[in-house]
Amino acid sequence: MPEQLQHFADRLTAAVCARGTPAVVGLDPVLDRLPQAVKPRRRTLQAAAAALESFCREVITAVAPIVPAVKLNSAFFEVCGGPGIAAYMRVIACAHRHGLLVIGDVKRGDIGSTAEMYAAAHLDTGGFLDVDPSCIADAVTVSAYLGRQAVEPFIRAAAANGRGIYVLLRPSDPGADQIHEFGSSRPLYQFLAELVKQWGEKENLLGSCGLSCVGAVVAPKDRQSTSTLRAALPRTPFLVPGYGPQGADVHACRPCFLPGGTGAVINASRLVIYAYQRPEFSARFGDDWQACIEVAAREFATDVASLLQPSIAPLADDPPTG
Amino acid sequence: MPEQLQHFADRLTAAVCARGTPAVVGLDPVLDRLPQAVKPRRRTLQAAAAALESFCREVITAVAPIVPAVKLNSAFFEVCGGPGIAAYMRVIACAHRHGLLVIGDVKRGDIGSTAEMYAAAHLDTGGFLDVDPSCIADAVTVSAYLGRQAVEPFIRAAAANGRGIYVLLRPSDPGADQIHEFGSSRPLYQFLAELVKQWGEKENLLGSCGLSCVGAVVAPKDRQSTSTLRAALPRTPFLVPGYGPQGADVHACRPCFLPGGTGAVINASRLVIYAYQRPEFSARFGDDWQACIEVAAREFATDVASLLQPSIAPLADDPPTG
Repeated sequence: MPEQLQHFADRLTAAVCARGTPAVVGLDPVLDRLPQAVKPRRRTLQAAAAALESFCREVITAVAPIVPAVKLNSAFFEVCGGPGIAAYMRVIACAHRHGLLVIGDVKRGDIGSTAEMYAAAHLDTGGFLDVDPSCIADAVTVSAYLGRQAVEPFIRAAAANGRGIYVLLRPSDPGADQIHEFGSSRPLYQFLAELVKQWGEKENLLGSCGLSCVGAVVAPKDRQSTSTLRAALPRTPFLVPGYGPQGADVHACRPCFLPGGTGAVINASRLVIYAYQRPEFSARFGDDWQACIEVAAREFATDVASLLQPSIAPLADDPPTG
Repeated sequence: MPEQLQHFADRLTAAVCARGTPAVVGLDPVLDRLPQAVKPRRRTLQAAAAALESFCREVITAVAPIVPAVKLNSAFFEVCGGPGIAAYMRVIACAHRHGLLVIGDVKRGDIGSTAEMYAAAHLDTGGFLDVDPSCIADAVTVSAYLGRQAVEPFIRAAAANGRGIYVLLRPSDPGADQIHEFGSSRPLYQFLAELVKQWGEKENLLGSCGLSCVGAVVAPKDRQSTSTLRAALPRTPFLVPGYGPQGADVHACRPCFLPGGTGAVINASRLVIYAYQRPEFSARFGDDWQACIEVAAREFATDVASLLQPSIAPLADDPPTG
């Protein structure tokens, strides 16, 4: 069976096991923060897209032996127009060639027939002769504000192609709280969690690891509410954003995992890809920005590796704080 | 003052007055539905994008004398990858050359720094030397599920460049009801309406017509709930989707307008751009698909023109049905 037909959750679980870490490196390349060596000479779409691409290729080379997957945020490529999107697709193919899984952080969401188009654009070759399946992400993030019909075309495309989706459930940005915690009897994100369960926990959508191809983006906030979400969604893979100095630590991420130590991946973007801008790294490695990224990726991967250990009583030592 | 620095709501209001109709034609081009004459010979990204572009150019030529604006849905271009996005930008420029305002229906939404990127990509030239401002839409649709910080960069970019945004408030798809009508004491969309008011009804964001550059996507459902939203948002321009045989009629759209007959535009996509696939049109015009589109646009524009008439007592003859 060709690789892309294996279930997404099985492929991701196997990759996490193989690397021994649930760490995912986020590729959010900002032109003005690129190392001098790859910055474009002229600020044109083509030159900028080429610079983003070569930066991402170097990051991929550095992190591929260390982590199971990368996450590309499409916004950072879209800003370079058509050449940016072409670069986005080539970077996905490059990551695949390096044995990485790829999550496309596109956060698309629209009604029925438009959702079909977005699903075709981001989870399928769209039937185009010149689109290699290796240019297509293994999973994408999806917004559910437009309801079931906005999500279903993505689920269908994912299930048909061994790919996955992550529905935005509880994002990391504190500014988002007012929306996803809206509601008097229960917050919106808990209601959305019920829908994600309904949409994703169907026999035909589960991999042999027991997880669905329909996942959720769940930022770790207080441990109690995260544990409640995890318990409510025992078959939903979590994509956990917001890890890092300004965000959540390993302790806060633990309840995102199933008792066996599976079921979640943790993303860090700026912490890794801009390591060369942190004094403690530049002091050690000078201009060798690739080395900075590699070492930062290794530190991140090691920090979160302990999350893969089975935790029989995940909250025993941790009283509710919610 | 260059045109792009005039306030978006003033420009839109003037264009609606000039054409005598609040009709907006939606460009949602689907490859398989294109007229035989423009269908691509080979299914490659480049050929497909070229076909979408030449179809849209013909539609623009046909409708430019009739309507004040077109709405491009980015999904239909994204499916053609990099060439699709390049075509999307060229179609925007073409619409501008024909004197049309352009709404980019992109429904983007992400947290802070990523939202900055999306705003730069869709409401600004991003500082690129080779991006002509005429390739940039006059307004875009935005998803607010990620809260204030997801929307603010778009508001800043809009205000700085005489452009606008439409926050997704109440979409037309019935499948979305379960999300935006969530809530026990009041539905989510009413809460979002309060936020839109808070974000947009600031002195510095208002045009001389009294409307803000922060608008809302509001599908007409029952007249009472639409009137309530309109009364709650007296300075918010509405973008009204879902007009047509399967959707809302003129009667249902009326409460979207302010008493003076301003404050809203009505979008129809398939009703107009695929008119040549309806038997009553092909019987009259044969292969002349451009004529079908022109006549359908004229019918649509005329149907909704009555909405511009001031309605002193908009609901007097219409008992609450909500």
